[in-house]
Amino acid sequence: MEVPVALHPKGNGLSLRSLQVQRLGPGPTDLAPRSQDASLAGLAGLAAASFARAKAAKAKHRRRSLAEDVATAIEEVTNTAEDALLHLSRLPAWLPGEKTVPEDAGGTRKRRVVVLGTGWAAHAIAKIVDISKVEVCVVSPRNYFIFTPMLAAASVGTVEYRSILEHIRSANPTIGYLQGTCKSVDFEKKELVISPYPPGVESDFNLPYDVLVVAVGLRPSSLGVPGVDANCLFLKNIEDARRIRKQVTQNFEAADLPVKTDEERRRLLTFLVVGGGPTGCEFCGELSDFVKNDLRRFYPRLAPLVRIILLHRGKQVLPSFSGNLQTAARETLENQGIEVMTSASVSQVDAEQVHIQKEDGKMALPCGLTVWAAGQIGQDLVREMHQAIPEQQELAQSEAKGSDRQLFVDKWLRACGTDGSVLALGDCARMEHEEPLPETAQVAAQQGAFVARLLNRQYDLTQPVPVLESSEKFDLAHITKRPEASPFRFLDLGRLAYLGQSQAVAELGLGSTPVSETKGLAAFVLWRSVYIVKQVSFRNRVLVLFDWIKSRLFGRDLTRF
Amino acid sequence: MEVPVALHPKGNGLSLRSLQVQRLGPGPTDLAPRSQDASLAGLAGLAAASFARAKAAKAKHRRRSLAEDVATAIEEVTNTAEDALLHLSRLPAWLPGEKTVPEDAGGTRKRRVVVLGTGWAAHAIAKIVDISKVEVCVVSPRNYFIFTPMLAAASVGTVEYRSILEHIRSANPTIGYLQGTCKSVDFEKKELVISPYPPGVESDFNLPYDVLVVAVGLRPSSLGVPGVDANCLFLKNIEDARRIRKQVTQNFEAADLPVKTDEERRRLLTFLVVGGGPTGCEFCGELSDFVKNDLRRFYPRLAPLVRIILLHRGKQVLPSFSGNLQTAARETLENQGIEVMTSASVSQVDAEQVHIQKEDGKMALPCGLTVWAAGQIGQDLVREMHQAIPEQQELAQSEAKGSDRQLFVDKWLRACGTDGSVLALGDCARMEHEEPLPETAQVAAQQGAFVARLLNRQYDLTQPVPVLESSEKFDLAHITKRPEASPFRFLDLGRLAYLGQSQAVAELGLGSTPVSETKGLAAFVLWRSVYIVKQVSFRNRVLVLFDWIKSRLFGRDLTRF
Repeated sequence: MEVPVALHPKGNGLSLRSLQVQRLGPGPTDLAPRSQDASLAGLAGLAAASFARAKAAKAKHRRRSLAEDVATAIEEVTNTAEDALLHLSRLPAWLPGEKTVPEDAGGTRKRRVVVLGTGWAAHAIAKIVDISKVEVCVVSPRNYFIFTPMLAAASVGTVEYRSILEHIRSANPTIGYLQGTCKSVDFEKKELVISPYPPGVESDFNLPYDVLVVAVGLRPSSLGVPGVDANCLFLKNIEDARRIRKQVTQNFEAADLPVKTDEERRRLLTFLVVGGGPTGCEFCGELSDFVKNDLRRFYPRLAPLVRIILLHRGKQVLPSFSGNLQTAARETLENQGIEVMTSASVSQVDAEQVHIQKEDGKMALPCGLTVWAAGQIGQDLVREMHQAIPEQQELAQSEAKGSDRQLFVDKWLRACGTDGSVLALGDCARMEHEEPLPETAQVAAQQGAFVARLLNRQYDLTQPVPVLESSEKFDLAHITKRPEASPFRFLDLGRLAYLGQSQAVAELGLGSTPVSETKGLAAFVLWRSVYIVKQVSFRNRVLVLFDWIKSRLFGRDLTRF
Repeated sequence: MEVPVALHPKGNGLSLRSLQVQRLGPGPTDLAPRSQDASLAGLAGLAAASFARAKAAKAKHRRRSLAEDVATAIEEVTNTAEDALLHLSRLPAWLPGEKTVPEDAGGTRKRRVVVLGTGWAAHAIAKIVDISKVEVCVVSPRNYFIFTPMLAAASVGTVEYRSILEHIRSANPTIGYLQGTCKSVDFEKKELVISPYPPGVESDFNLPYDVLVVAVGLRPSSLGVPGVDANCLFLKNIEDARRIRKQVTQNFEAADLPVKTDEERRRLLTFLVVGGGPTGCEFCGELSDFVKNDLRRFYPRLAPLVRIILLHRGKQVLPSFSGNLQTAARETLENQGIEVMTSASVSQVDAEQVHIQKEDGKMALPCGLTVWAAGQIGQDLVREMHQAIPEQQELAQSEAKGSDRQLFVDKWLRACGTDGSVLALGDCARMEHEEPLPETAQVAAQQGAFVARLLNRQYDLTQPVPVLESSEKFDLAHITKRPEASPFRFLDLGRLAYLGQSQAVAELGLGSTPVSETKGLAAFVLWRSVYIVKQVSFRNRVLVLFDWIKSRLFGRDLTRF
């Protein structure tokens, strides 16, 4: 029996990463043509916006009182109890044999909910939604959820890829799933055009909806820096992690060839990580572990030549953390020999070198591998929805300097300018008239749980404030006297980052109230404990635990595969 | 402490598969141009030869007496004791820190042995070779060994890919490794041209040798059937297993799209396996398990549409097994609903259908995935060595109908027509004037162990019969009074094949003497026991065991990755 951790107030996403994505339309490798379409000026603006968001995350949108936060936490606990009951009722679907779909109690047609995406937000909906109340179909080119906070660990083999994935049908065997991308939305007809994935094999088809949930996330972006798409690896999807792992072992094998000059060896073993957020910092830590614990043993001549450089645009790495932890993080990284370069940016990436702009001038750095963890842009579908809805464009102009990377939503996550049948959440959504929430797994998972409950309780989403559709039906929401849906409230529980060599930084809190700041080994133990609890299923928990034991006992696997 | 199983008389490779390969030059995807070069007539000959070999395997080359077989087995036991001592002495190399290379006892320069390949034969050498006696460098584009008998299991997720791989540097941290392919050999200068892998990035370089060991295996081939390279998947390398697993889950997702007609669904879910050897039969069994145990649960509508068809050229599948077991195997497969089509061959493979030639006429079969496990050809390097050595060409004409897929070797595995400094073993070698040995892991591993001991005991390979180089040195071979090297003798221990639904067939023996024939669940338990013992390291043993438990507990993972 699995109570989804995403619902539990203690486990509601402690990370500040913004890794989860639903690739709709072109993936990272297809970015180039779009980047060329967009003007560079616009992209420079995006870069600035991206940096500003990190600050905004720290501002933790509007300040709330401790009482408010505690009330939110208590509500989460009652919600979790409700979800646990739902999960119990879903047990028969787990048994082998034919599935029986529960009939709608009222005999009327159930609302058809189409969820776009399989990231944190969509996965939370899939876990919590009650198909006796609504019919759910998830559409995504990727038939699995990724536990994104462990992508950095997977990219060096601390955990295996499949240990941090969950097949969406396994997440909830009672929902439907279609492997495809949504190309366009007809808001009048309430119909989507779905293009099966991979593109070009099957023909497009239409899919009607009553409620559309957009949870397509963001996608990594070069932010207009020339050469990034061709010469850098991103760290957003599981394929990215595989590419990085293969490339790191490949570089060691290449550097070990007898014909290599020492200069070439140094270049091949220089790893540049662009972006000092949690993704970049954790990748540096994991890579440093990989080199120190495993690669050094088999390439003793090469290990001293390795350089790991973390390049960050701002003055301090981990901008979302407190000042003390930022300093601690930098020291921890530097103590391991990782070079931290702040107030620096990349102006161009060539095949074998990266051009860096620092405060005191320019430099060209010969590099063997550049990992780009520095920016994200909107999905094509979100841009197109902006163009189709005038109110979105107005809000973008007045609140986001014209950026169409996110859909503006109201307090109940309904897309502004629609009739309430379109919801947006996670990284691809932004609440109107408020400071933007951080683009993290934590926010997305909480929003997913919120939307699943709106649907389970059958609120009428067309009303200004969603109300229960009918008071005749027996419903837990009636017992708990919630005829009007409460708006979404983000309960910030803090953030964690692993930094290598069993060191981490952790900042825990309850909403706006800080609870504790931890660093070093204690924070690392906290990191591992939280992430093992946060795993989305018992299976993943067992696999991740086994992987940790395995990589400790036998070392990380070096096969170039 | 790891005693390599390949040395143990009981564990010396119980499978008759011929999966291990060292890709030198173009890989499977690059086959097309070469296939066009070769005349189709030649390829038809190859197909016939391939079929004849299966028969030859059954003939178990020359009959030997039980006394001879027992003597060979006893010699293997003493050899294993010798190897165990060597492994103990290698323990310090496993500890972290700088490696110290043991000095040559005699003070003279050690012989430089270059081993081409990381398959069964090369891996056995790497495990057993004593670098206090010789300097060893392994050259291969693939820096890992594959436990090939479990490739079929890996291709559906019964075990994970990395659980059946071993990094060659982990196999023996005291040897050298270069990631590249050997492009050509200068027998006069005793020098190789090595092209670093992947090709086109680094420039070629020369590598001198005193002893060259060719263990490059064979590579899968279309046998001249049009469309195979473009439309079929092979099952030879770990990347092949990954491609197959991804394609199977992809076909289920595609068939689940609402716009699909039933006819299209049936096509997508028709899986054709060409080749009724152990690889083909085991893949059918594993795929059937995957469908019945896992996919049926999540795609209940689709499971009844699945067809698995095994197509075999000969009259009975598993030609290397006894008649009783052949019949039992066919029944076991058919009882699971797998369609077995014998005396049939493929004349052409299109994108969506396969043209089949049967005794009673032709048919076109719409197919979603075709796995080609039906033929292997020689590596480019072996062909080129044939052209460079006239004696090889003569032997090919007189003994192999002109086929240049294997190098002819003498009783000590020295390539005929060379000065004794070139050894060849495994699938790419064939002993002159004898019935060809089966192209199996078992033969390759025994030959690898044989060659490693020839090198460890420092026999002078230039003599007609290799003799100990110097009688002054202390050596175990002197104690056991083997101043002249005994020739290689293959000790056939039998063969095993898994057939799905916990059923297998097993034929055990000692050389030419049959010991037992088992089928059903007992054979399956034997299969698992033998393969867990045969794993090349403690790490792999733990990982495979864990994978079996995992796939039993949680089911196989369905993520399309």
